[in-house]
Amino acid sequence: MPRMTAAEIDQLLAASFPQAGGSARSRPSATTSSTAWSATSDAFLRPGGTLSGPTLMTLADTAMYFLVLAMTGPQPLAVTSSLTINFLRKPPPADLYATARMLKLGARLAVGEVHLRGGDHPGVLVAQASVTYALPASA
Amino acid sequence: MPRMTAAEIDQLLAASFPQAGGSARSRPSATTSSTAWSATSDAFLRPGGTLSGPTLMTLADTAMYFLVLAMTGPQPLAVTSSLTINFLRKPPPADLYATARMLKLGARLAVGEVHLRGGDHPGVLVAQASVTYALPASA
Amino acid sequence: MPRMTAAEIDQLLAASFPQAGGSARSRPSATTSSTAWSATSDAFLRPGGTLSGPTLMTLADTAMYFLVLAMTGPQPLAVTSSLTINFLRKPPPADLYATARMLKLGARLAVGEVHLRGGDHPGVLVAQASVTYALPASA
Amino acid sequence: MPRMTAAEIDQLLAASFPQAGGSARSRPSATTSSTAWSATSDAFLRPGGTLSGPTLMTLADTAMYFLVLAMTGPQPLAVTSSLTINFLRKPPPADLYATARMLKLGARLAVGEVHLRGGDHPGVLVAQASVTYALPASA
Repeated sequence: MPRMTAAEIDQLLAASFPQAGGSARSRPSATTSSTAWSATSDAFLRPGGTLSGPTLMTLADTAMYFLVLAMTGPQPLAVTSSLTINFLRKPPPADLYATARMLKLGARLAVGEVHLRGGDHPGVLVAQASVTYALPASA
Repeated sequence: MPRMTAAEIDQLLAASFPQAGGSARSRPSATTSSTAWSATSDAFLRPGGTLSGPTLMTLADTAMYFLVLAMTGPQPLAVTSSLTINFLRKPPPADLYATARMLKLGARLAVGEVHLRGGDHPGVLVAQASVTYALPASA
Repeated sequence: MPRMTAAEIDQLLAASFPQAGGSARSRPSATTSSTAWSATSDAFLRPGGTLSGPTLMTLADTAMYFLVLAMTGPQPLAVTSSLTINFLRKPPPADLYATARMLKLGARLAVGEVHLRGGDHPGVLVAQASVTYALPASA
Repeated sequence: MPRMTAAEIDQLLAASFPQAGGSARSRPSATTSSTAWSATSDAFLRPGGTLSGPTLMTLADTAMYFLVLAMTGPQPLAVTSSLTINFLRKPPPADLYATARMLKLGARLAVGEVHLRGGDHPGVLVAQASVTYALPASA
């Protein structure tokens, strides 16, 4: 059971990262397990509809951050420890969405796998990433 | 539809890598999509039942190799280009099996995701890897 | 001997990626081998002087892109194939610079290692990355 | 200043991992900084002189393990948390040596960069890896 809802995560992001300007929105995934969470991007679309590599990396990182928040509660101090991304296909000129799945939630590290898809549902697999977050020590 | 069966892969391995000595065996996965293939290891069990990190890396690499063979036909010259592995949990003292899933099969590169599990089915997720193979140019 | 100078790279970037807005600038490195190239960022500084993970990923990717251009000549079609980044320390509130070193320049893939440093020279090591670019087939 | 010498590391390995059978030997590097440590492999040479991908992964992991031991003292419980390796060139039919460099030694994680070289000194760069070890909590 998530410790934060999508609305609570969006509220935390707006308060903690005002400069993000709504470019990513959280939403729980209905199609996968309760540990999945996705982030959508449409603010980064370039003219021509292409999406840059850094945009994909940002979206993968963000989706995992949402998942960490959803499963551990509000801890803006969780930070990315490492990220590996494989770019698979040129993104279609459409919204992109990322689905993160928690592989391990330990006391100090959270490891997840992220799939980025674009276009019509269920979408073309555009990139795959594994992301590790370091969790702050419990108070 | 696979281009090589499990029996053909095992035969190719025995001929090409005699020193491997049957330590890994191929088998198609019944529980996932047709692009999945798994490798099993029980030859690497140490006294005490622990499995070393290098054993897990070898198994992840092998499972992806089986998948490349199954999908492209016999090409022993395919070589690993890069591999990232995240170790998640201590393996249980039991057989370990790896399931590889093809994320992209291009003309020059094959990218896959591998999950290593151990113990009773469906097993504990022990490690996750992404593996890229470089494919030899077609004749 | 580089096939493109820093000025030529900056000119290519301004023409190909006008939206980047001068946020990264290329410069050859005087302190390392001829295969090194660095990118500097000061446009991404947040209030408070922190730099986000995605900013570091972007800078690592950009430094490697500069290096590919410098060593192969103008080919804007080179694309990132995979990237692994390890975040090591909180960046100091100062400019950040990335140094890329070519590990292998093949016909189809370029693999490099990138170090990101910040603060006074030689700077604190903030992150380390390995980046692979897929090169378009020669005409 | 190292907390363990090469002789002490070899002794610890022989006691803790008797099955390794002397296939890797530690030695401090004279050519790089005091945080470098290398491991040599000649036990894995196949007929024909080729070295498999798993052998390279094992050597990279071992070199980083030696470095962790050298810098933190005897703690056999340090375990690999993640490893990324890029295979660059076919190894020459000769001994292979790995040099690990510590990028960050924190309280909980140690992150290092490993270069594998083969043949005559300074050798051909065969593979590059980044390796993270999780350190047991201090007593």
